[in-house]
This record gives sequence, structure tokens and C-alpha cells, in this order.
Amino acid sequence: VSVTDVGRGAVFLLTDYGNRDEFAGVTRAVVLDRAPDAILVDLTHEVPAFDVRAGALTLARCVGSLGPGVVLAVVDPGVGSGRRAVAVAVGGASVRSTARRAGPRYLVGPDNGLLGWAIDALGGATAAVALTPPSGPAGPTFDGRDLFAPVAARLWGGATMNDVGVPIDPGTLVRLADPVLRVTAGGPLEAEVLWVDGFGNVQLAAREADGDVAGLHGALEIVVAGSPHGGRRVANFDVLGTDELGLLVDANGRLALVCRRRPAATVLGVEPRDMVMVRPVSGPGR
Amino acid sequence: VSVTDVGRGAVFLLTDYGNRDEFAGVTRAVVLDRAPDAILVDLTHEVPAFDVRAGALTLARCVGSLGPGVVLAVVDPGVGSGRRAVAVAVGGASVRSTARRAGPRYLVGPDNGLLGWAIDALGGATAAVALTPPSGPAGPTFDGRDLFAPVAARLWGGATMNDVGVPIDPGTLVRLADPVLRVTAGGPLEAEVLWVDGFGNVQLAAREADGDVAGLHGALEIVVAGSPHGGRRVANFDVLGTDELGLLVDANGRLALVCRRRPAATVLGVEPRDMVMVRPVSGPGR
Amino acid sequence: VSVTDVGRGAVFLLTDYGNRDEFAGVTRAVVLDRAPDAILVDLTHEVPAFDVRAGALTLARCVGSLGPGVVLAVVDPGVGSGRRAVAVAVGGASVRSTARRAGPRYLVGPDNGLLGWAIDALGGATAAVALTPPSGPAGPTFDGRDLFAPVAARLWGGATMNDVGVPIDPGTLVRLADPVLRVTAGGPLEAEVLWVDGFGNVQLAAREADGDVAGLHGALEIVVAGSPHGGRRVANFDVLGTDELGLLVDANGRLALVCRRRPAATVLGVEPRDMVMVRPVSGPGR
Repeated sequence: VSVTDVGRGAVFLLTDYGNRDEFAGVTRAVVLDRAPDAILVDLTHEVPAFDVRAGALTLARCVGSLGPGVVLAVVDPGVGSGRRAVAVAVGGASVRSTARRAGPRYLVGPDNGLLGWAIDALGGATAAVALTPPSGPAGPTFDGRDLFAPVAARLWGGATMNDVGVPIDPGTLVRLADPVLRVTAGGPLEAEVLWVDGFGNVQLAAREADGDVAGLHGALEIVVAGSPHGGRRVANFDVLGTDELGLLVDANGRLALVCRRRPAATVLGVEPRDMVMVRPVSGPGR
Repeated sequence: VSVTDVGRGAVFLLTDYGNRDEFAGVTRAVVLDRAPDAILVDLTHEVPAFDVRAGALTLARCVGSLGPGVVLAVVDPGVGSGRRAVAVAVGGASVRSTARRAGPRYLVGPDNGLLGWAIDALGGATAAVALTPPSGPAGPTFDGRDLFAPVAARLWGGATMNDVGVPIDPGTLVRLADPVLRVTAGGPLEAEVLWVDGFGNVQLAAREADGDVAGLHGALEIVVAGSPHGGRRVANFDVLGTDELGLLVDANGRLALVCRRRPAATVLGVEPRDMVMVRPVSGPGR
Repeated sequence: VSVTDVGRGAVFLLTDYGNRDEFAGVTRAVVLDRAPDAILVDLTHEVPAFDVRAGALTLARCVGSLGPGVVLAVVDPGVGSGRRAVAVAVGGASVRSTARRAGPRYLVGPDNGLLGWAIDALGGATAAVALTPPSGPAGPTFDGRDLFAPVAARLWGGATMNDVGVPIDPGTLVRLADPVLRVTAGGPLEAEVLWVDGFGNVQLAAREADGDVAGLHGALEIVVAGSPHGGRRVANFDVLGTDELGLLVDANGRLALVCRRRPAATVLGVEPRDMVMVRPVSGPGR
């Protein structure tokens, strides 16, 4: 590995292939067959099957932490259909990046909205190409192996966008609907659940500033499917009592409903895409 | 990493150790302790516990995508018993390989049939050795750490087969029973279920040519445990309606029963080793 | 990668982040952003959520197999609270190590007992520092990304302990309670269940010598929650009949209750921290 190669960075993988089957392993092997010096970083392979929205949110949460390289993302219920496969070039300058080095230069995956919020987080697309489909005996069902991994390896190795596809207008890339968020001054705040993590924390489609507008400080009322729960604004998990619900600013700058060493999602009975309303107990919404 | 080292390729890992315990992690660490320049590629560690047949099928599905290196495979219910541990050399020329570079040169694992179909797919064994058991304080239960990882590291690093074991006749390696497949001209086709993947796709022990012989085009009848289901031959998932069953040629060249964004295995109530009968609706079997 | 870099070894990761979310992937990415030449080895990310004791035992089981490098361990229910974050230097000489090269030089993680038994296994702490909290926009909930990964990368790259924190007395590091073990000459032996692995093997807080003192040879009685089970001392899994329980010395030198190709934990109805009593059938305890 020369300094130049290390400078190329990593190939970052995010899929819904799971870790049980060999799909992720084969994708890794194909990248390394074509780019033997590449460093592979598995972001996750356990995006819920077919859940493009969850994959797009996950990728967007990751990109601010990534150094240079190529993102290979596959959550692709439309594999084998007419959906486009794309590579997208970005400036590599993330607004929120905490990485020491410049971020990824390319993202590769299906054109179904999976890449959109990550592209936004990396400063927007500077160019995009529709990938040339694989030739030869490739089947219709494993583009990770047959199309995306080879393209990611080529881009990592120095190929240009024009080497791997045909230019398209980045403005035509498929976009997912924005997460639902309604903020009223003094409350309430109504937000879509974006993510329930493995600890049961409930990330909302709202940021700290949204909570400030809605007056979400001190005691709170949290309403899910018509059922109210008490809670309070906190700075971390550990100040919460065993039975308490807290609202904090999480590691992505989002408001999240949490418990102390218990899954808040189970306590509240929520899952991604559910709506949650939060208001100050003394606020106008009460 | 010199060019020579990269030329040695990777150590490819496939086990039933799971990702929950540290078994896979320790195996990785031992390979790297002995071969610090090796590149590790996890194919999967989630082969169902003790399921040698599932592991052998998984490995066979992988090998055509692998570049050079050493395969370390452990699904080993007989660990600690008298079963042989082996390393097998292959020509590295896979009939169906899509890899750019030559494939793996060595496979290391228990002699219980786990390696057999992968060896076949890599052109057959050119030599085999029974591994010398580990000396010292190794226990009877973790040969991945104590035997297979050190041997894989040594072979990766340039050791010869005779350095790691005693020559045996490759013809004496344990073979698993071939998957069950009965094809009648014009139908029906009866095939063992080889694999249900994480999306619920049902891979059969039949290839495209078998489907052609059985006349599996257009409308189909699929019979599982005496219960008939309607279906049709398709080229990809996306042409299927929500409630339809399809038969397609999958990414391994096998016939597979699939649904669109739903698990066909659940719809059909099948699991690996079950038998499935498929026939054309207008065929002689009806 | 120069010889020097390879000589630095790996960054070994152990967390309860799970493989579903992107926490582990982001942690990997941050290490590589700061230490592009580092080799990452995932020990496991599936320590049960918040289970510091399980994580500490897992790490202790691993360290004897590790070559040089830095251990990054995060099972951290107190993240965001006042608990200390620490780096600990060790001599790298493990009493029980089977690694060819010297073991890890540094361990990084929360000061909640997670690192303690691994430190012991690596010969004890030679120095410890309390880590300087991350500056800037880091939130209170993801110290793996914001604190531990950057510190591990710096130590891997040659930073000194004083570069990353403020010296503390290693004797003040939090210790977990020792596992419960009571051994009576001739039996019985009473031991805490340390671990149930993915195969259902039940590791006890007792070593081979403890079993010798208790006379655990030949036929045994195993008592769990007042219910007796028959069993016998064996050298490996394969000599057991389908319905038999065995006691063997496992790959960590611990006594373990096992079945042949079945989960002994299910047969016995035990989980970690339960107490198990074992005595010879003809012993004085009967």
C-alpha cells in the first residue's frame, strides 16, 4: 500500500444483505479482487430488508464521520427492474463532518433515494452517471456483486465517472419524501420517528433548535397514538430514574426519546415512521 | 504490504461461530498475529450451527467470486473427535469464476464434507494433507483458533502443504450426498431446497437447463407437501404482483422461487432440505 | 504500510453496539480516518446491551490470542455521566497467551470494570490516564465515535499516554466483583455461570484444577435451581450420547457443561450469573 493508495481511502459498505448470508462477504471479496489495496469498512449490512428509507437515514448519519473513499450502498428492492444504477460525485466537504480528512468522493448504488440525504450531507452532487449494466452471465438479482462492487473498485482505483457510466443530470436523481416535522412556537412539536436503535432509543425528525422553538425544556408530555406519557428534557441518560422518559440531543444532533438502560421504543410502543407529539407540560398545547 | 504480499491475496473466513460470541474475532486475530500482512475477508460466520451441508453450499456459492488466497472454513460438530482436519490445494481455475484474478489456492477446515463442493467449483483437488494437531495447551473445542487459523496463516505466508500436514489421497476426503433433483421432460421437476436466503428466496437444486427440460415457462404449478400454489416463470422480482410467486434464475444460476418484496419461503412454508415439485400448468404432469 | 506500521499491530474492537446499527461501522471509520494504516479486528460488537460483566469476561477470553496493538472496548451504560473514560497501558506479557507476538500495549474504554480482567490477563496495568473529554460539538451519547476511537487511533499511531489524558492511579480503576466459586474437596463445586455461547455451552467460573479438587471425574450430578441432572466428565463433545450432559475443559481452560450438538443451556435452563452445583455421584456431597 503506497501513500497514494492510503490517500485513496476506504470503500465504505452499507447494505440490507444481512450478516447471515454470504452476500456481504461476496461483495467484499469482489471489491478486493478488483482493488486489492482497498481498505474495506462495513458501515452496516443489517438495514431492514427492502427499507430504502431506513438505509438512506443510516447512510446520512454515517457520512460526517467518514474519511476519503467510495461509498457502496445497496438497499435495492427494484434490482433487475428498469431502475437506474448510479455513481454520484460529491465535493467531499461535509457541513457537519467531524472527520480529520476530506470525506468520500463517490457514492455508488441504486437510484431509488438511498443516496440522497448522504449526498446532501456531503455538500451535494457535482456529477452523476447512470452505470453501464454488467455484461456477461450476471443474473438479475445480485447487483452488489455484479455491478456495484466492480464500479466502486474502479472508482477507488482511479477510474473516472465517464469510465463507469453515462452522465446524467444530478437533479434527476430520485428523492425520498422529507421526514415529517411540524414545530409550533411554545409547542407542540410533532415529528416522525426516524430510527429506533438497538438500545431502543427513539430518534425524531427534529433538531435541538426545533426543540427550543417548541419550548421543550423541563417537564414534557409525550403523546403516541393518543396515549400520553410523562417525560423531561435531559442532557444524558444517567440522570433519568428507572421509570422515566427523557428527551435529549443525540449523537446526530437529533432530538431523541430515551430511557436509562431500557428501550424507550418498547415503553412508548413506537417504531420508525410513527408520529410522536411532544409539548412542554405548562405550554399552550396543554 | 509488498506487491508480493498483495499477490498472495486474502484469507477468506466462513464459519458457524456466529457474530455474537468472540470466536470469529479471535480466529481473525490469530490469523493476523501469524500473518500480519494478510487481508481478511469474512464471507459469513452465521452458517446455522452444526449445519455442514448449509456451510458447504454457502462456500460453493462464494468461491467463484474470490480472488487469490486461502479459504478457512469451520462448521465442525465433530471437533475434538477423531475426524480429520485437512488442507486441500486446488488449481485455482474455477469454471464459473467471475473474479479477475486466479481464485484461492488452498482450503483449510474439517474433513466432513464442508469443503467438497467448493473444491469441485475450483476445479478439483490437486493435493490434500491431514493437519498435524496443535501441540501444547490447546483444548478440544476451538480448532478455529488452535489449528485452522495458524495453518491458514502459514499457507498464506508461503508454507507448503507438507509443512502443515501429512499427505493423504484427495479421493478419501469426505463427500456429502448430492442434492436431490429429478427432472422429467415436460415436467414435473422435483428438487431439494438448497437455501432460503434472508429475503426469503427459495433456491432449488436445479439449474436453468433443468427448467428448460421440464418446460418451466409461463404459468406453473408449485407443490409443497401436497399443497399446490400458482406461479409463473419470470426474469426478475419486479414484474411480480404482490401476491404472486415467481420462478427465476438466481445469481448462482439456480432456479429459485421468489416473491416481490416478500419472503417466498414463508408463503410456501418451506425450509432447506424440503422437496418442491414444479410443473408447467399445461404440462403432462397436470 | 511500513514494517513499523505492521509492527504496531491492530486496533481490536469489542462493543455492545450490535451489528444492526451503524455504531460499530462509524467507530471503525473514525479509527481509520485518524490512523489510515491501522488494521482493524472486530472481536465482537454483540455483547448484550449494557452488560459490562459479559463484556469484561468476553474481553478477558480474547486477550491471550491477540498480537500487538490497541484494544478499544465500549460497553458503557454510564456514557454521558460522570464516569471516567480511561486508557490503560499494560506490559503486553500474558501469562496464558498463545500469540506469537507480544500482546496489546493499550486498552481504551470506560472505567466501569469492563477492562479489568483483560488487564489482569495481560499482566496488570503499568500506567493509566483519565481521557480528556472530546471538545466541540460531540453529543453525550456516542463516546465510541467521539472519544474512544480517536484516542485508540492516536495511541496506535505513537501518541503517549500523557498525550491523551491525565495520569491516574491504576489502583483506582473500577473492579467488578469476582465470579462466585466455592470448591469443596471431594465435592460439591458451586460456580457461577460465566457465559452461554451461541452453541449453548455453559462456561462455569471454575478451572480444571477446581474440578480435580472437587473430584469431578466419571459420573456427576448437576443441580440447577434445585433440580438434579445426570452427567459425566468427558474430554470432548463427540463421546456424548444424544441425551447426555457432559463436563469438559473448554478452550479457555474453564469447566463447561455441554451436550452433543444441542444447547446444554436450554437443557439445564440456565443463563449467565445463575449458580450451578456439580458433584461426583459417589462423592461425599451425595
